[in-house]
Amino acid sequence: MSPIAPPDPLPEPLPEPAVADLRLETVLGALSDPLRLRIVRKLLLERTEFDHPCGWFELDRPKSSLTHHFRALREAGVTRQRQYGLERRSQVRVDDLNARFPGLLDLVAAWTPAETD
Amino acid sequence: MSPIAPPDPLPEPLPEPAVADLRLETVLGALSDPLRLRIVRKLLLERTEFDHPCGWFELDRPKSSLTHHFRALREAGVTRQRQYGLERRSQVRVDDLNARFPGLLDLVAAWTPAETD
Repeated sequence: MSPIAPPDPLPEPLPEPAVADLRLETVLGALSDPLRLRIVRKLLLERTEFDHPCGWFELDRPKSSLTHHFRALREAGVTRQRQYGLERRSQVRVDDLNARFPGLLDLVAAWTPAETD
Repeated sequence: MSPIAPPDPLPEPLPEPAVADLRLETVLGALSDPLRLRIVRKLLLERTEFDHPCGWFELDRPKSSLTHHFRALREAGVTRQRQYGLERRSQVRVDDLNARFPGLLDLVAAWTPAETD
């Protein structure tokens, strides 16, 4: 698949908490799930384009389940989502999370799935 | 209340995961609750004796609820609990958590409750 050029200007982000409103308990809750850790880790380590759609993650789950997890990550402030036509694409709010919770994303990047996952 | 000398030897710890078995998703889940963050933060910042009983935390919750939260922290590997007679006392597994998830306890220590908590 050839790289997709980002639209200019980018679509507005979907609703998300402001950086000052990020709460540690909420962010940790959003990350306390292996599937969500997998999503955020892949975004951190393998990001290649502007934003990534659901399919890029190669997660073998129903779309409704993925939609739920991506929304939970956005509402907690972990990711930013933009709507591109019918598709939502995600990126990690790296600068915001590093500013508020330094070191947290390093833990996510270093995470590996349990053998049973 | 005068300081209590620890028994020698200390009671055996209650069952807990080995340091190699600590899982980031489980630890984050245990910490994704304001009451538990409050417990762990107080243990980190105000620890004065060998272990601390429930009452030391000055949490205005039913004992059954506190028992649940303390057990959840222990089972996730965040705290170690020992039984002293009828009483369970807790401490944070600082060395184990720093070895496996460096920086995580700094985030907990820096946490402040939301104004609505």
